[in-house]
Amino acid sequence: MTHSAHRVFNFSAGPAVLPEPVLEQAQAELLDWKGSGMSVMEVSHRGSDFVELAAHSEATLRELLGISDDYYVLFLAGGATLQFASVPLNLAAAGATVDYLLTGSWGQKAAAEAARYATVNIVADGAGSHFTEIPAPESWKLSEHAAYLHYTPNETIVGVEFHSVPDVSTAPLVADMSSTILSRPIDVDRFGVIYAGAQKNIGAAGIAVLIVRKDLTGNARKETPGVIDYATMATNDSMWNTPPTFSWYISALVFDWIRDQGGLAALGERNRRKAEKLYAAIDDSAFYSNPVRLDCRSWMNVPFTLADDSLDKVFLQRAAAAGLTNLKGHRLVGGMRASLYNAMPEAGVDALIAFMEEFERTQG
Amino acid sequence: MTHSAHRVFNFSAGPAVLPEPVLEQAQAELLDWKGSGMSVMEVSHRGSDFVELAAHSEATLRELLGISDDYYVLFLAGGATLQFASVPLNLAAAGATVDYLLTGSWGQKAAAEAARYATVNIVADGAGSHFTEIPAPESWKLSEHAAYLHYTPNETIVGVEFHSVPDVSTAPLVADMSSTILSRPIDVDRFGVIYAGAQKNIGAAGIAVLIVRKDLTGNARKETPGVIDYATMATNDSMWNTPPTFSWYISALVFDWIRDQGGLAALGERNRRKAEKLYAAIDDSAFYSNPVRLDCRSWMNVPFTLADDSLDKVFLQRAAAAGLTNLKGHRLVGGMRASLYNAMPEAGVDALIAFMEEFERTQG
Repeated sequence: MTHSAHRVFNFSAGPAVLPEPVLEQAQAELLDWKGSGMSVMEVSHRGSDFVELAAHSEATLRELLGISDDYYVLFLAGGATLQFASVPLNLAAAGATVDYLLTGSWGQKAAAEAARYATVNIVADGAGSHFTEIPAPESWKLSEHAAYLHYTPNETIVGVEFHSVPDVSTAPLVADMSSTILSRPIDVDRFGVIYAGAQKNIGAAGIAVLIVRKDLTGNARKETPGVIDYATMATNDSMWNTPPTFSWYISALVFDWIRDQGGLAALGERNRRKAEKLYAAIDDSAFYSNPVRLDCRSWMNVPFTLADDSLDKVFLQRAAAAGLTNLKGHRLVGGMRASLYNAMPEAGVDALIAFMEEFERTQG
Repeated sequence: MTHSAHRVFNFSAGPAVLPEPVLEQAQAELLDWKGSGMSVMEVSHRGSDFVELAAHSEATLRELLGISDDYYVLFLAGGATLQFASVPLNLAAAGATVDYLLTGSWGQKAAAEAARYATVNIVADGAGSHFTEIPAPESWKLSEHAAYLHYTPNETIVGVEFHSVPDVSTAPLVADMSSTILSRPIDVDRFGVIYAGAQKNIGAAGIAVLIVRKDLTGNARKETPGVIDYATMATNDSMWNTPPTFSWYISALVFDWIRDQGGLAALGERNRRKAEKLYAAIDDSAFYSNPVRLDCRSWMNVPFTLADDSLDKVFLQRAAAAGLTNLKGHRLVGGMRASLYNAMPEAGVDALIAFMEEFERTQG
C-alpha cells in the first residue's frame, strides 16, 4: 500500500479513510469518465456506462462476500439510519414484535427507530457494563414470535465486536454491519438482512448496501416510502429513482480494490494483525488502557484512555503534528479512538504505536 | 465560461452537466482538502471544517434565493423521491386531504407516493393534453381543507414550466423544484415547502435541499423516518445522522459558482436567452417541432422531434460525434430533448443550433 507524503494517517471513525488508489482514480477521471468527456457525476444512471458500473459493483460484492442467488443486493440512498426504519417497515407486519439486542449506541438508535413501527423487545442490554462486553447468549430474552432479531456486529463508540454470528433465534437475523462489513469473510447465509452505510469500509457517505434474502421481500407495509421498499428497489435494480451515483461509483472502485488486495480472507488477516498489535501496545503499557472484554474487542475501532486525561489535548495535538489525525474518542467515552478500517494501512498502525510509545516515554 | 477541449456539451436531463470550475476544484483537492491531508470524503461531518462548509453552503443558498429566517434550509440524503413521502408525513395529519396538480410524470409520481399517507385530490390533470399545457387555474378543483397544494413548477419529460407562481389556494404551497431551482429568482415567501433533488442545478445526485416554513414543522407523524422529520433535521442542522458529505460539498461549490456568475438574476437572463434561441431555431424550421404551448415552455428542458423520425438515430450519432451528447428524448415522448441547466454554457446551445441547422440542410 502506498502512502503519499502529503497525506496523513486518518483514524476517523467515519466518514473514514479511503484507499489512496481509489481516490487517485476518481481524481484522474473526475472531468472525463471512461473517455466520455463527462464526469461520472454528470451522466444518467440509465445510460449504458453507469448501468454497467452498477452491475459490475454488484457482481464484485457478490463475489467478495459469497452472496448466493437467494439474496438481493440493493444500493440505497442515505445511510444506515434510514435502514433502521426500512427493516421493520419491510419485515414486520403491523402489531408485530421485533427483537433487538443492544451492545452499544447504534443498536439503541436502531431500536428507537423501530419503535415507530413495531413492538420492540430488548433481548439484552449491555448498558449495565457500559457496553464493554456482549451479554451472554444464555441471558437473552427472545420473543416467541419475533419478526426478526436485530443486532449490531460492531459498535464503533466503545469498540465492541462479535467475532462469531449469534445462533440463538429461529427468527431471521438482521445485522447493521456498517462498521464491520468487508473487514473479513462472513457467512451471508446466516442472515436475513445485512445492511451497511458506506462511509467506513464501502466508500463515501450517501449510499447504503442492503443484502436481503429474497423470500423476506414483497411484504412491505403500505406506509413504506418507495425508495426503501425492498421489492420495489430489487425489481428496479436499485434504480426506481435516481441513485446517489457518485457514492455508488466510489463503492465500485473500493470493491475492485478489495479484490485486488486478495479479497476478504487477506484483508481479514491484515485487520486482525493491525488490531492485535495495537491492543498489545495498549495492554503492555501501564499508561494506556482499553476496558473492553478481550473476547469482544473490535478490530475496527480501538478506543483507549491515557492514565492522565489532562494529557489528552497534548496527545491529540502532537499526534496531529505527526500526521496521525482524528484520534479523539467519542464524547460518550472520552479519551482516544483509533479506527482501523480496511483502508488504514498497517504502516499507519505502526506509526501510531511508535508515537504512543514515544509519548508515554516523554509524558507518561 | 470556459470549455475544455476534451469535454463535451452534455444535454442530459439529470444527473446533468456541472460547472467546469466546480469539477476542477473538486479534482484538485480530492486527496487533500483544505490542506488537511484528507479528502473531503474522508472527514467527519462533525469536524470543524465540514461544519463550516455546511454553514457556508446554507448561508450562500439563503443569499441566492433570498430565504428569510421564517424558513429552515435542510440538506437531506437521497433525492426528491424520498421527499415525495416526507411532504405528507410532515404536513398532513392522518385522514387529511392533500391537493396535487398534475402537469407531468413527476407530479404523478409525487401524488402516487402521497397516496400512501393521505387522501389525494387531483386538482387538475394535464394528461388530456399529453401535458403540453398547464390546465387553466379556473378549472382547478381545490379541496376545501387541503393540508397543502403540491405542484411541479417544471416537468422535465415534456418540458412544461410555470413562469409564475400559482395563486389560487389558501393551503400552503409545496413545490418540487428539482429541475428549476436556482435557474432564476423566485419569491420563497410564496411557498410552504420547496424541495429539490441536487442532480440538475444543485450538484451531484444523493442529496436534496428542502426549504420549509418553520411554522409548518413539528407535527410529523409517528411513522416518519427520523431522517425526513423536518423538525428533527432542523434541530440537528441536517446532521441528525451522517449526511451525504461529498454531494453536500459539491452543492456548496455550485452555490459559490452561481454567486460568482452574478446570482440568479444574471443566470435567469442567460437561461431565458438560451431557451429562447433554441425554441426560435425549432419554430423557424419546418423540420423540427415542439408541441408545448408557448406560454409554458420550459427553460430547462427543450424536447423536439424531427419531421422524419427514421432520422432520429443518425441525428443522435452525428450529434455525439460533434461533441453534443445525451440528446435522446425520454421514451414516453420520443424524439430529442436538450436540457439547458445552469451549467450548460450558451456556447453549447449555439453549437447545438448550428448542428441542427446543418443536419436539416443535409438530411431534412
